[in-house]
Amino acid sequence: MDTKGLHYIVEASGCDPKVLEDIDKIKEILINAARAGKMDIRSIHLYRFTPRGVSGFLIVTSSHISIHTWPENGYAAIDVYICGEEGDPEKAVQHILKEIKASYAHVTEVERGVKDEEGIYTHVIVSWDEVFKPQ
Amino acid sequence: MDTKGLHYIVEASGCDPKVLEDIDKIKEILINAARAGKMDIRSIHLYRFTPRGVSGFLIVTSSHISIHTWPENGYAAIDVYICGEEGDPEKAVQHILKEIKASYAHVTEVERGVKDEEGIYTHVIVSWDEVFKPQ
Repeated sequence: MDTKGLHYIVEASGCDPKVLEDIDKIKEILINAARAGKMDIRSIHLYRFTPRGVSGFLIVTSSHISIHTWPENGYAAIDVYICGEEGDPEKAVQHILKEIKASYAHVTEVERGVKDEEGIYTHVIVSWDEVFKPQ
Repeated sequence: MDTKGLHYIVEASGCDPKVLEDIDKIKEILINAARAGKMDIRSIHLYRFTPRGVSGFLIVTSSHISIHTWPENGYAAIDVYICGEEGDPEKAVQHILKEIKASYAHVTEVERGVKDEEGIYTHVIVSWDEVFKPQ
């Protein structure tokens, strides 16, 4: 299997606290994000933590999605990492941002498993910001 | 809970293929990495994929470790993300790199959940390379 993968690292601000603390909704969002990203689902794991917040993981062969939420801050930390060329991680990210009603996102795209001229694996980083209109 | 977290994104080269394809060894490495990083363990999930390679996840409340391995390339993609100030993610990373016998690592440290002056969450990135002596 190709070592190359795309990993999106996202800080989402201004999200809906009700969505961020709803464990069933987070599960649904992860499943639909995987579908949007053309990822097969191997397993899903969700944890509620005190006082508020959810950690969610969706695992795929050599790929994964994770989300950690802080409802009290309207903040979520999202990772979408897809290996190979068949998936569409950016669509998975956009689905999550829309569903948690983010108003702002700081996104870093990391191209992983890139072989340099000396045969050493490295990664390539690009960052940007996104502002969303109120839904 | 504090939104701040440290996320290490690591491409490891020149690793021992025997370790990278040994699912029991990868499980043991993840458990001991969590201990080294002072992380409590909520759950561990391991997958073997064809033709070779392992995906491993160790989940902690609002933190996680993941590894995807390509034994045929001596390559592993590692993530260690720890929220709060009690854990020591760098020790977890160093434990994994030592145990998979990496000869080279490209590391990016992402400081996540950092609030800027406008109240928006962002992240701060620092990258470096590490070369290890043969063990």
